[in-house]
Amino acid sequence: MATPIDPTAVAFLLAENRSMPMHVGGLQLFTKPEGAGRGYAREMYEAMSGVEDIAPLFLKHPHRSVRTGGQLVWKPDEQFDIEHHVRHNALPEPGRVRELLDLCGRLHSTRLAWERPLWEAHLIEGLRDGRVAMYTKTHHALVDGVSAMRLLASVLSTDPDERDMPPPWGVLPQRPRPEEHDDEDGDDGGRFAGVPVSALRAALGITAEAAGMPGALVKTLRKGLRNETSSLSLYAPRTLFNQSITGSRRFAAQDWPIERLRAIGKATGTTINDVVLAMCAGALRAYLIDHDALPDAPLVAMVPVGLNAKQSHIASTEGGNALGAVMVQLATDQADPARRLGAVHRSMKDGKEALSSMTPVQILAMSALGQAPAILTPMLKMQGILRPPYNVIISNVPGPRTTHYWNGARLEGTYPLSIPINGMALNITCTSYDGSMAFGLTGCRRTVPHLQRLLTHLDHELQALERAALG
Amino acid sequence: MATPIDPTAVAFLLAENRSMPMHVGGLQLFTKPEGAGRGYAREMYEAMSGVEDIAPLFLKHPHRSVRTGGQLVWKPDEQFDIEHHVRHNALPEPGRVRELLDLCGRLHSTRLAWERPLWEAHLIEGLRDGRVAMYTKTHHALVDGVSAMRLLASVLSTDPDERDMPPPWGVLPQRPRPEEHDDEDGDDGGRFAGVPVSALRAALGITAEAAGMPGALVKTLRKGLRNETSSLSLYAPRTLFNQSITGSRRFAAQDWPIERLRAIGKATGTTINDVVLAMCAGALRAYLIDHDALPDAPLVAMVPVGLNAKQSHIASTEGGNALGAVMVQLATDQADPARRLGAVHRSMKDGKEALSSMTPVQILAMSALGQAPAILTPMLKMQGILRPPYNVIISNVPGPRTTHYWNGARLEGTYPLSIPINGMALNITCTSYDGSMAFGLTGCRRTVPHLQRLLTHLDHELQALERAALG
Repeated sequence: MATPIDPTAVAFLLAENRSMPMHVGGLQLFTKPEGAGRGYAREMYEAMSGVEDIAPLFLKHPHRSVRTGGQLVWKPDEQFDIEHHVRHNALPEPGRVRELLDLCGRLHSTRLAWERPLWEAHLIEGLRDGRVAMYTKTHHALVDGVSAMRLLASVLSTDPDERDMPPPWGVLPQRPRPEEHDDEDGDDGGRFAGVPVSALRAALGITAEAAGMPGALVKTLRKGLRNETSSLSLYAPRTLFNQSITGSRRFAAQDWPIERLRAIGKATGTTINDVVLAMCAGALRAYLIDHDALPDAPLVAMVPVGLNAKQSHIASTEGGNALGAVMVQLATDQADPARRLGAVHRSMKDGKEALSSMTPVQILAMSALGQAPAILTPMLKMQGILRPPYNVIISNVPGPRTTHYWNGARLEGTYPLSIPINGMALNITCTSYDGSMAFGLTGCRRTVPHLQRLLTHLDHELQALERAALG
Repeated sequence: MATPIDPTAVAFLLAENRSMPMHVGGLQLFTKPEGAGRGYAREMYEAMSGVEDIAPLFLKHPHRSVRTGGQLVWKPDEQFDIEHHVRHNALPEPGRVRELLDLCGRLHSTRLAWERPLWEAHLIEGLRDGRVAMYTKTHHALVDGVSAMRLLASVLSTDPDERDMPPPWGVLPQRPRPEEHDDEDGDDGGRFAGVPVSALRAALGITAEAAGMPGALVKTLRKGLRNETSSLSLYAPRTLFNQSITGSRRFAAQDWPIERLRAIGKATGTTINDVVLAMCAGALRAYLIDHDALPDAPLVAMVPVGLNAKQSHIASTEGGNALGAVMVQLATDQADPARRLGAVHRSMKDGKEALSSMTPVQILAMSALGQAPAILTPMLKMQGILRPPYNVIISNVPGPRTTHYWNGARLEGTYPLSIPINGMALNITCTSYDGSMAFGLTGCRRTVPHLQRLLTHLDHELQALERAALG
């Protein structure tokens, strides 16, 4: 009962190695319902592991043998063991968020074995404030960050009294898609949420083509990266983030009220997404100064954005929107926070305009570069493009806007863990939820030392932007 | 800097698959030193993970490539990451021994990835009685149960005030071998402890030869198993333990005062090892009756024993003793505990006498069968020997006789986790330490349901033997 694996998933499976596990992760924090006892985390674990029907996505594993002609196929796991995939963990003393992030970093460092379905979920108790955490890990061949977020959202409810809700790997009753998952300020980023998983897949399909090296695509990509007059052509300096990585991961996460970001945006005529990027820019600058490693030239971030309806005719067979990527100058050479925000805003605007004037193939090439750099980078090297096309990936995935619950447990926050790759040792992914903007920083533990200090820098930068914008 | 892998280790690596992880485990329970604070487990973890010099055994991983001509070699891990190998865990509420055994079963179920050195150690806090646990997992290609026990013993001290002691994976200062590791009653089992690892390896070397199927050896083995007049030839019935297994593990463990076993032995003229086997016999009988699955014919256990000096001339190049295997009738068809003990005693005695009359090649064949059934069983099948040669493996590995400490933490107990294989879904390994006999039961979670009930049966059987022997 083997089924074919789509070419993109194959590419993600084959790109993986010990230094580059190809799974995305998510950390969720829940508050117990009122009246829940000490054993609540266990009850939650039992509800999650006791589910009868598992969605087929979570039952298959990659398989390759002589009988499949050496081709990778999906095979149902005939010894499927839910206790392997859903686990009950606890934090060591003193049970601070620090211990939780340490555990997530460790869990995120280990590859998923191909001999079993490519996912794990860990219910974690022992936070001293009594909250319960869940860390999930899913191979990029199954989902990407956006669809993982949607999967989670699809099992949550706004009703604290709803019960008998399945976990994300359970078989879901069909529900209408809630409208509210759109981004707060109607930024392009918001369109991510409207993209069905299958359309994302279609958009990503290009990466497999690219891995097969169709000459025209490669040429377009080279032209785009080298054309001095295009805003796609940026000079990205080498930084400590742009090295080979190991398989060790560190994870840092924190959230801030979106209201604070919105106030800055309003006062300066910028978007919330611009403020997110400016926070990252300032934090990266401070971090690199700490390490005496700030390059003269400004850092460049690759920022995935949604494409509007006019642009999207190229990508989707299901009416969804496609993804594009914008290269944003982070102005890390500027000492002044307000100037950095202004520069980021202009660079983002230029990039989007450039996108809108690009041909469909150019957009697809950028999209491929944004979504699957691990696959494309070796190809670029073979084509003589050795400089990193950008320094860091910063993405912003919108989540539910209002408070959500899982069987009465209130979701307090949700934090994404992403995929550092060779040459791109740090990934910053943000998710908005219930009035907060969460930053999830995933880095190679060896290449990016003291990753958690970036959180302090992010906080300082937000304060500095407030002082600059609001006086 | 690749180094060759000895043929036995290669055989263990190649025999491994998802259903049959080939690692041995150990669970140790420690009591904190007086005055230790809440953070003691963390201090212990930091001492264990902070070690500067790691023994080479723990730094190499198997590697195979075109450059090695497709041969497996050991390669030093150039990205060695101690935080991957030494981990700090905690138990969920309520932190009973049950939660600890669950965690060990789960950790024991997952294969060690070849891309890293083949070991893990987990320091586990959160036992409600305040003890700290350590679970270690080491591939059989690196150590066997006996050498793992010796490795642990080698870093412990009888002095509660000794400090700055390295963990088992640290580089050890050379010390004289303590004499006291011999078995309590001078039983043959005791000789295990005197066998240097390299001699064990030499004895095990035969398995690789066997895998290569030298005709003479196979013939000897077949003759031994079929010869009606030899005590080696036993009829082992099919039981629920003798099925294909999955990769899920359950672990159960408990210890009893050796004094109780010794009293029974004294009163009945049997050895402590006989009493261990009789406890297992009675427990297996009760367990199989519970499942309405007791066969008419008595079960047969494969029991590894040491060989005395006269027999050992064949095995060791370093003057150590070799291992042999005795097939012991467990008399599970007998309802009376005293009769079972008597029958086990006679069967063990016969088996040892038979061993002493065997030729060196016969002994080696038995030894290979005992040590590497996973490797030999397919070979036996190819030779038309389809019946399981025995139903269960019961081994008894002596440990230190007196109280030992690691940097002031008192070792309370040590429990072995072993390797179930296809056709042999349950493994019972016992270790003696500080006046207690610990039983470690490792089984396939699906094939051996309610494994933990065997502990209750063991306890009942010990009481029944006491009533029978002591009145």
